[in-house]
Amino acid sequence: MPDLVVMKFGGTSVGSSERIGEVAKRVAKHKKATGEDVVVVVSAMAGETNRLIELGRKVGGEKYALREYHQLVSSGEQVSSALTAIALEREGFKAKSLLGSQVPVMTEMRAQHAIISDIPCGNIRSLLDKGITPVVAGFQGIDADGSYVTLGRGGSDTTGVALAAALGAKECHILTDVDGVYSAAPNICKQARLLKVVSYEEMLELASAGAKVLQTRSVHLARKFKVPVIVASSFSEGRGTLVIEEYEGMEDNVVSGITCLPDQAKITLRNLPDKAGIAADIFSHIGESGAVVDMIVQNQGSAGNASISFTLPEAESDSTYADLVSYVNEKFPGVNIEIDKNIAKLSVVGEGMRVHSGIAARMFDVLGREGINIDLITTSEIKISVAIKQKYSELAVRTLHEHFVEAA
Amino acid sequence: MPDLVVMKFGGTSVGSSERIGEVAKRVAKHKKATGEDVVVVVSAMAGETNRLIELGRKVGGEKYALREYHQLVSSGEQVSSALTAIALEREGFKAKSLLGSQVPVMTEMRAQHAIISDIPCGNIRSLLDKGITPVVAGFQGIDADGSYVTLGRGGSDTTGVALAAALGAKECHILTDVDGVYSAAPNICKQARLLKVVSYEEMLELASAGAKVLQTRSVHLARKFKVPVIVASSFSEGRGTLVIEEYEGMEDNVVSGITCLPDQAKITLRNLPDKAGIAADIFSHIGESGAVVDMIVQNQGSAGNASISFTLPEAESDSTYADLVSYVNEKFPGVNIEIDKNIAKLSVVGEGMRVHSGIAARMFDVLGREGINIDLITTSEIKISVAIKQKYSELAVRTLHEHFVEAA
Repeated sequence: MPDLVVMKFGGTSVGSSERIGEVAKRVAKHKKATGEDVVVVVSAMAGETNRLIELGRKVGGEKYALREYHQLVSSGEQVSSALTAIALEREGFKAKSLLGSQVPVMTEMRAQHAIISDIPCGNIRSLLDKGITPVVAGFQGIDADGSYVTLGRGGSDTTGVALAAALGAKECHILTDVDGVYSAAPNICKQARLLKVVSYEEMLELASAGAKVLQTRSVHLARKFKVPVIVASSFSEGRGTLVIEEYEGMEDNVVSGITCLPDQAKITLRNLPDKAGIAADIFSHIGESGAVVDMIVQNQGSAGNASISFTLPEAESDSTYADLVSYVNEKFPGVNIEIDKNIAKLSVVGEGMRVHSGIAARMFDVLGREGINIDLITTSEIKISVAIKQKYSELAVRTLHEHFVEAA
Repeated sequence: MPDLVVMKFGGTSVGSSERIGEVAKRVAKHKKATGEDVVVVVSAMAGETNRLIELGRKVGGEKYALREYHQLVSSGEQVSSALTAIALEREGFKAKSLLGSQVPVMTEMRAQHAIISDIPCGNIRSLLDKGITPVVAGFQGIDADGSYVTLGRGGSDTTGVALAAALGAKECHILTDVDGVYSAAPNICKQARLLKVVSYEEMLELASAGAKVLQTRSVHLARKFKVPVIVASSFSEGRGTLVIEEYEGMEDNVVSGITCLPDQAKITLRNLPDKAGIAADIFSHIGESGAVVDMIVQNQGSAGNASISFTLPEAESDSTYADLVSYVNEKFPGVNIEIDKNIAKLSVVGEGMRVHSGIAARMFDVLGREGINIDLITTSEIKISVAIKQKYSELAVRTLHEHFVEAA
């Protein structure tokens, strides 16, 4: 049996009939060059999902039946998968598009979106055995009732990785409109380098810290099933970035990348009674409102009181703040609440932090020398994140990149 | 169990988010006014099927895998059915969209398009039992392998009538952008009347003679299963035209309607040896090329020779003519072939022709008095059709309408 790779193409990669022709050429070239079997996964054509969501909003207002949302938006990948199969046939390959219901991609609902529970591979295997290239509609699956469901924005990455895992594929190629994962955003930092390889952990931390190149859930899945992922551009021939469990010299990489998540806000509660359970009480209240909290820091105050700060997307901050004021005033009178907007989260990520110490101190020193104040600090095994004023974020990225990446 | 009607809305009726809102209001109003259950069937939003076909052509050229064509274009009704279900929920009704695969609409392939072989009604019945209005994606079904198939242009009419038959519905409402069936095209003939009722036979003859209000196949199906069909406008409140097997005073209607099918061509073969099997030979040769022949007339010539004339769409006439010239020159040398373009087929249709004689003579007389030459004549039990020069077609329609409808 030949080796098998999954090639997933994003929305801009299939954004026009011309682009879809290029995708078919790329798949054809890979098959001819390597002799490998390819399972193709496609997103909807760029802009199509938004067009469908807007149609749904126009007809149904802000809130309508989730089932119909799924039936509606999943049509986007139906179109792109059929067109890609047509284009592959034009390149001389037999091809067949498969909807989520035809693979089938079995899912279970979690909150607003589905997660993949199982992918029986019989249909895909039988196509491959006949020399037919399957073109799978990403982002979609079916539930136990046979209703269509979708996997959430960017869910086609997850379809790609899940299929690669189910099929025991050699690699999952995520082909997109960027060349791979960079050491910093190239539009902010001219010296940014394309990373040849990163670990799953690094990729997860980079993704959660603002690098938009891969959907976090797909990286979790790749790590769980040890699927090597290659992130590369479908618009050029570069080799992209390999995402893998371990790589040579991994621990020498003190800092692999620097990211910035803009448009955050910080809410601080001061003078909280220092009793067990209060933080839990407050964050479970916030959680019920659906707000997604990111960094959380708690400090001991001087007189036995505590203060808690947390960050969240600025767009959700006003409603969360107002809600929290009325909740806290009633339940914990005397507590003082402040909100700070125009906050950015700046992170340095690197496997080398596991074995190198003193990185945090160097980071604070570098920022301090530029006069950049640090509002909050959180750390993980391979990441240090700080909240700073957003206006300093480009300067901070460039300075940290110079210190940790270029000078390393 | 309450009475049940099927309401099918065409592409312009669901052509925008606003129109889809109007469709939901209309269904809601019907349900409130009558207490009847409604099964809704929708076409794709106007222009959408053409957009998808054009995308397919851009990617695949003029000819590509039929299976992918079906997967591609069926996405149009997926969008409109989900949106219509969303709009109905906004009107306060529970609703659920169903794709062809979810009903399921079982089909078999015939040439390029599928025909409906069976519609198991369990899913729809169970929704209705729960007070949920099913919104079925028209035009689509699945084949025995579970692949998507489509029913050909205008196939949503067929979905509507087939569902009405399968469910034993009281009526099938075809809601479109015209007020119903007219005694002549209102844009040609100002005196044209909206017909309150026509028989299936009349509707079939009118449809095949150029009235575009209903797809012929859906009328055949309605006649076969005796489904009363109401053709009306979704843009206004008129009662439209009822299509039914028999109606009161049916045989008094000598002429119900006058239609004109423009842009035809006439090909004539003269001096054919008068032997059995020659017509069959020639028309099976034409059939292989895919050309759709309409009127056929054969005459005995003077010297034991025969001549055959037939009409076909002008767009196909040049290639058919060229092909026929080379075929006949080789096989029947000495035969002379002529082509006439700018031909229109003019038809008068009425159940009353079954019992009234002399209609053909009156028709020829009326046309003759206006100086309009008749090229070919064909008749059925309730229809007389003539081929005339296209430039006379409006005059002919108005004159015949005046004589047969207004003066009746």
